[in-house]
Amino acid sequence: MKQFVVIGLGSFGVSVARSLYEMGNDVLAIDKDEELVQSISDSVTHAVQADATDENVLKSLGVKNFDVAVVTIGSDMQSSTMVTMLVKDLGVKYVIAKAHNELHARVLYRVGADRVVMPEKEMGIRVARSIVSTNLLDFIELSKEYSIIEIIPLDEWVQKSLQEINMRKRYGLNVIAAKKMGEEIVVSPGADYIIEDGDILVVCGKNADIKKLEKRI
Amino acid sequence: MKQFVVIGLGSFGVSVARSLYEMGNDVLAIDKDEELVQSISDSVTHAVQADATDENVLKSLGVKNFDVAVVTIGSDMQSSTMVTMLVKDLGVKYVIAKAHNELHARVLYRVGADRVVMPEKEMGIRVARSIVSTNLLDFIELSKEYSIIEIIPLDEWVQKSLQEINMRKRYGLNVIAAKKMGEEIVVSPGADYIIEDGDILVVCGKNADIKKLEKRI
Amino acid sequence: MKQFVVIGLGSFGVSVARSLYEMGNDVLAIDKDEELVQSISDSVTHAVQADATDENVLKSLGVKNFDVAVVTIGSDMQSSTMVTMLVKDLGVKYVIAKAHNELHARVLYRVGADRVVMPEKEMGIRVARSIVSTNLLDFIELSKEYSIIEIIPLDEWVQKSLQEINMRKRYGLNVIAAKKMGEEIVVSPGADYIIEDGDILVVCGKNADIKKLEKRI
Amino acid sequence: MKQFVVIGLGSFGVSVARSLYEMGNDVLAIDKDEELVQSISDSVTHAVQADATDENVLKSLGVKNFDVAVVTIGSDMQSSTMVTMLVKDLGVKYVIAKAHNELHARVLYRVGADRVVMPEKEMGIRVARSIVSTNLLDFIELSKEYSIIEIIPLDEWVQKSLQEINMRKRYGLNVIAAKKMGEEIVVSPGADYIIEDGDILVVCGKNADIKKLEKRI
Amino acid sequence: MKQFVVIGLGSFGVSVARSLYEMGNDVLAIDKDEELVQSISDSVTHAVQADATDENVLKSLGVKNFDVAVVTIGSDMQSSTMVTMLVKDLGVKYVIAKAHNELHARVLYRVGADRVVMPEKEMGIRVARSIVSTNLLDFIELSKEYSIIEIIPLDEWVQKSLQEINMRKRYGLNVIAAKKMGEEIVVSPGADYIIEDGDILVVCGKNADIKKLEKRI
Amino acid sequence: MKQFVVIGLGSFGVSVARSLYEMGNDVLAIDKDEELVQSISDSVTHAVQADATDENVLKSLGVKNFDVAVVTIGSDMQSSTMVTMLVKDLGVKYVIAKAHNELHARVLYRVGADRVVMPEKEMGIRVARSIVSTNLLDFIELSKEYSIIEIIPLDEWVQKSLQEINMRKRYGLNVIAAKKMGEEIVVSPGADYIIEDGDILVVCGKNADIKKLEKRI
Amino acid sequence: MKQFVVIGLGSFGVSVARSLYEMGNDVLAIDKDEELVQSISDSVTHAVQADATDENVLKSLGVKNFDVAVVTIGSDMQSSTMVTMLVKDLGVKYVIAKAHNELHARVLYRVGADRVVMPEKEMGIRVARSIVSTNLLDFIELSKEYSIIEIIPLDEWVQKSLQEINMRKRYGLNVIAAKKMGEEIVVSPGADYIIEDGDILVVCGKNADIKKLEKRI
Amino acid sequence: MKQFVVIGLGSFGVSVARSLYEMGNDVLAIDKDEELVQSISDSVTHAVQADATDENVLKSLGVKNFDVAVVTIGSDMQSSTMVTMLVKDLGVKYVIAKAHNELHARVLYRVGADRVVMPEKEMGIRVARSIVSTNLLDFIELSKEYSIIEIIPLDEWVQKSLQEINMRKRYGLNVIAAKKMGEEIVVSPGADYIIEDGDILVVCGKNADIKKLEKRI
Repeated sequence: MKQFVVIGLGSFGVSVARSLYEMGNDVLAIDKDEELVQSISDSVTHAVQADATDENVLKSLGVKNFDVAVVTIGSDMQSSTMVTMLVKDLGVKYVIAKAHNELHARVLYRVGADRVVMPEKEMGIRVARSIVSTNLLDFIELSKEYSIIEIIPLDEWVQKSLQEINMRKRYGLNVIAAKKMGEEIVVSPGADYIIEDGDILVVCGKNADIKKLEKRI
Repeated sequence: MKQFVVIGLGSFGVSVARSLYEMGNDVLAIDKDEELVQSISDSVTHAVQADATDENVLKSLGVKNFDVAVVTIGSDMQSSTMVTMLVKDLGVKYVIAKAHNELHARVLYRVGADRVVMPEKEMGIRVARSIVSTNLLDFIELSKEYSIIEIIPLDEWVQKSLQEINMRKRYGLNVIAAKKMGEEIVVSPGADYIIEDGDILVVCGKNADIKKLEKRI
Repeated sequence: MKQFVVIGLGSFGVSVARSLYEMGNDVLAIDKDEELVQSISDSVTHAVQADATDENVLKSLGVKNFDVAVVTIGSDMQSSTMVTMLVKDLGVKYVIAKAHNELHARVLYRVGADRVVMPEKEMGIRVARSIVSTNLLDFIELSKEYSIIEIIPLDEWVQKSLQEINMRKRYGLNVIAAKKMGEEIVVSPGADYIIEDGDILVVCGKNADIKKLEKRI
Repeated sequence: MKQFVVIGLGSFGVSVARSLYEMGNDVLAIDKDEELVQSISDSVTHAVQADATDENVLKSLGVKNFDVAVVTIGSDMQSSTMVTMLVKDLGVKYVIAKAHNELHARVLYRVGADRVVMPEKEMGIRVARSIVSTNLLDFIELSKEYSIIEIIPLDEWVQKSLQEINMRKRYGLNVIAAKKMGEEIVVSPGADYIIEDGDILVVCGKNADIKKLEKRI
Repeated sequence: MKQFVVIGLGSFGVSVARSLYEMGNDVLAIDKDEELVQSISDSVTHAVQADATDENVLKSLGVKNFDVAVVTIGSDMQSSTMVTMLVKDLGVKYVIAKAHNELHARVLYRVGADRVVMPEKEMGIRVARSIVSTNLLDFIELSKEYSIIEIIPLDEWVQKSLQEINMRKRYGLNVIAAKKMGEEIVVSPGADYIIEDGDILVVCGKNADIKKLEKRI
Repeated sequence: MKQFVVIGLGSFGVSVARSLYEMGNDVLAIDKDEELVQSISDSVTHAVQADATDENVLKSLGVKNFDVAVVTIGSDMQSSTMVTMLVKDLGVKYVIAKAHNELHARVLYRVGADRVVMPEKEMGIRVARSIVSTNLLDFIELSKEYSIIEIIPLDEWVQKSLQEINMRKRYGLNVIAAKKMGEEIVVSPGADYIIEDGDILVVCGKNADIKKLEKRI
Repeated sequence: MKQFVVIGLGSFGVSVARSLYEMGNDVLAIDKDEELVQSISDSVTHAVQADATDENVLKSLGVKNFDVAVVTIGSDMQSSTMVTMLVKDLGVKYVIAKAHNELHARVLYRVGADRVVMPEKEMGIRVARSIVSTNLLDFIELSKEYSIIEIIPLDEWVQKSLQEINMRKRYGLNVIAAKKMGEEIVVSPGADYIIEDGDILVVCGKNADIKKLEKRI
Repeated sequence: MKQFVVIGLGSFGVSVARSLYEMGNDVLAIDKDEELVQSISDSVTHAVQADATDENVLKSLGVKNFDVAVVTIGSDMQSSTMVTMLVKDLGVKYVIAKAHNELHARVLYRVGADRVVMPEKEMGIRVARSIVSTNLLDFIELSKEYSIIEIIPLDEWVQKSLQEINMRKRYGLNVIAAKKMGEEIVVSPGADYIIEDGDILVVCGKNADIKKLEKRI
């Protein structure tokens, strides 16, 4: 089992720390603010009030033994830069750092971050994608040309088989899975699969074809 | 073509507005801060400095004619609440609002939001998922049981066909697509598809099976 | 006996809480500020220092069992909005909330307030009414056309009977009651009632007629 | 026609100034804040940006010729004290001042105020009275013993005549007026008046008797 | 022996309190600031940390039994106004208050001050007087026409008798006293008094004559 | 005629500058604050907005040609120290500086001040002296033993001659002058001078004797 | 001739920029604060008000063509970090950056600084060295063992030749140069050089020997 | 052994205090800030939290018995001025004070400082000197005409003897010492000394000649 340390307990840090812990991992959460540490203490393995910009503090917490560090200090960029450098120099193998802007991201990579995330910006792109068609629910951008998306079926598809709809030919899309009401999933549904009201389809195809479909809705 | 209005130009708002515009939509961006408005003016259709908590301002900007409003005011929760209510009451069909916390989310739904997003929290979950296995790149959670994920192949798979690996039987996973070096995508690769070094596989399967695979990495 | 909870102990909240308690009701007063809580503790049944925006706090105080909640948080609008929603959702039957302005009032109704008051605004109207004629002391506005008002009699009325003055015909007003020096009240005084110096008359009539009388003063 | 000057344009001052103007009076509104002056300019006769603590400013505005001054400066008590003294010394006959607390009220009377109001406190009492019984809508307190109140009739009264109900005997109350749906008012309704659903009754009686009635609701 | 209470321990208050105590009086010193109270505690009879704007505090300190109260609160004018009113109302016979400006002085007299001082202004006048001639050391202004002043003798007077100098005739001045080196004072020195180097003369005369003399220096 | 420059226009500086100008002197007033400069411009010869801590500014204003400089900068001690040094170094003969406390006074003397005043402290002593006996109006302290004071006569003295009262023998005091109602002054009143009601006496004597007299009042 | 750009105009930056310019170099000075830019404009080749954290600004100023950049931004560490990275990435060959502390220094080296200076710390060491013996005026630390120092000669050396003193043998020191009164320097003075009062000697030797000498003083 | 007191523990003060202590001296460090005192406590003889502007505090710490005081208070100039005066007046023989600017330096000398340093400015000059030629490492300015400098040899000098290079004639410079790789120093190297790669030469000469050499690099 991997060991994770999350430094900085703003909204993003709390969400990362909780999710990691819920997936069954060991999580150490660190913040300077006693109150934030208190409120997360039941949702992680250990929660410690400490100043992570102090190298000795990081050492005494044994940070070097952790597999992954997530640096999500939000208050000031310099602290986030310093802590990222310190945890990398201490020997943490994989360091993810949250950047405030593009310039900060560059600095973080320079001081040793293995991956830099900008949650507000990346989530903005996801939300924009999803609202262009309100039928699109979630997606993976495979390349500039291809995507996998979740869609609500057109009314005219309901009670028809995939064969009748002829989705690959007419729309250029492959149906990868169908989510039924409840939690049931049909993976790689056959040609005779009948789409029902309430189904959500996961399809794969070219962005251009997906866009065409979206315009029909 | 749909019309979008984005109110509030913090990191999240800017990212939403730019993405929508880049996808070829009409985007009106509004903020109280003249500087923020200036800096986005080249990346959207129109950018206006205005106080969105003033109903008359919203009216004179013709907000009611927009299809979707994205309210991403970050500075204070009350303004975000008021603007969400105002744009919904003016007749905007679909209103997405950014919440600061769970309680705020509840208030936003109550005053009319059709969808509430919490970027820091949602992104936190995505990042947590992706770092549990550093081989996992992106994912869609189909249900509590099933997911679609992007993975880097195990070393032992390289130069073998899908048939040889026998992924469905051995790992319980379906290969939906393979991303080749460059931008090429092979959708629904056949049983004779040979995995090459540098490929990224998009697979669909039960979370439990995905987890087992991740542990092998 | 009804149970009241007053949340927020500014001038208005303190005045509501004290008045309710003096009328013989059970009153729980809540504020975040320890000093405000101390200073009202002798004038209500219970006074508690607590953060009312925390749902668990409200639950542990048993707020759902109260008949009426008065939310008068003055410092920030969002807290007042959230608390109003929370107490309503917890099951309080009647929730009165203080608004900072018209827009805030709309939000409060939307999240569940049964009645919204704007003390400064409403008192402004009352004071304006009363100072138009300094003879007018208090009033109830029955409709846009009719009011009940307290007036100091004209000098020429003193020592005359209501019949002599012929108030209904000459001024279009009904004398509902007469307040004598001391605390004595004569309800529905008869036609032979003699107005004395120091009497205050409570009359009912059309606003236009009242205005005419006021101009004579 | 009387001349009014309102100094200080907070919620209370704005409400007083607008109400006075709507009742057809000449109103001069003064505040140090240009924005507040702008926003009220259409709702009063004149609106002026000026520092009212400067005696020369008050003189040049001809304040001494006004009949009534309402001093509602909210920001700091000392300014409100000084302006109250200045307008009284300049010769304004009737000066109403808004106090922040009891001690401030005492100072205001000492420097010349003819009437001191505490809107939050007074409104608090009114609201408390009205919510003790949610049937009570508005009221005039005639004395410690008697009041006039607006009430929603008991269900059992509907479709009965006043005679049948025998209100004076059974409840000790006189029905002064009845507000019908719409704006119609029946002043001094006769014994044969039939109470309809939606009526609001204005009654006069002893507080003890009113309380008894309230308990029945 | 008289009892003095000094409220407010800025530079002026401390100086008043210490001087009164050094002259052998009973002095109670009050301030809100614990540190200021500590630092004066050895220089007065009693020093108390208390909020003097709270009437109950003043009562419990027995302020009404003091003969003279000096209110020198410097931080905010309103507190100084309120405290002046409170101590006067409690029955202190003589209340001296420090004003910030002319308008404040007017308010202080109105709420009951028996004497209002403006130290910076009054000291400014004294200093101006004294520096017009650097020979003038101290003075009492008897009237617009007459003053008593301390002067350093002209060089030509040294080793001459008052008779020789003929001061009354030549300069219009009466020599009231002569301060010798050390602490010796010769009151009403005779005509044969010889002025020595180092003497300081106290003379009385018309301002015009004093001015003439000053110009000779 | 002497030339004066007053630097710093707080209460004390304004008072010094105005007094000097009213006594017929040339006064240049300097402050960093434009508003303060405006408001004194009619009460001095010249008023200039300038930063006196800049040596070049002082030179260009010709400060070295002034006879006396009064440095009364109140906002920060360091500026007052620097300006005192600069004006002295530029060649001003007599420099008076206002100190905030004893330590500051020492610094000011060290950097060149010829005289240091502490208005709040010095005025505190004067006020304390005057209120010990409310009959004492003004005074000059000649030495630790002797003073000249203004007193209101005892009731028993009125309508008696100085001879009858026998003030020198009985009280050890010399009457130097008598101020009559109006502005008349009788210098060195004769033994037959009759004290009238409303007279104020200026007497000279030992502090011990003055104190004895004060106790009789 | 080399081209220098100094970014940040605090005390250190101004001193660097002025010195470089006085030595005959081309210097561009940049700061965000217009006032600082104005005040240095006569002491450098060009002075520009600009935000150096904006890469486009740096490009348009042609920063890449400069040989050396000195980054002395004092207000916040992150800006100094970003600008250091930007100027290095733009191609400036030699970048000197001022650090606030050791951790900041590490970050600066990581993002590309060629040399990091900590003026307060380095100057502290120099001053400490020089005050250990007040005879030591300036020094170069050649190694942990050797230094070159300026010293004031011992009294007993005056009017003696170097041979007589026998400095190398007795003290282990070589006399490298002698500074005479005025500006004259005798480099490598001969054995017959007579030390005069007022001479300053520059000697080279082991720290241990220098220390011994210092103890004799 | 000398006794040192360092007052003020900013970067400069800490550096001075530590250096003095490391050189084997007794050092007392004083600051108002408890945290700063804590963090230096292991690097000096004594560290005390105290307000040095209080003369009694300085006395009780026995400051008068110290040989040298270093006043490096950075927060406000007036405190630094006052403390400099106080320690000098208490009898400390040698007082070094840190100045914020030229004017402050003048004040410090006036109140008694024996030496005034401006670290940022002086270090700025050193850094400027050193970067003009990046070959110059450290230097002593002997006079306006002569300097001693450390230089990296030109490539063409390597593996040549000093005689071959003929430095005195060709460049006008005397080689005082040569620093070898490691810590070895050759003082006054002979004419046959062979310059090796990695050597650093300490030379003495005229600034004009040094400049010429620098241009060759």
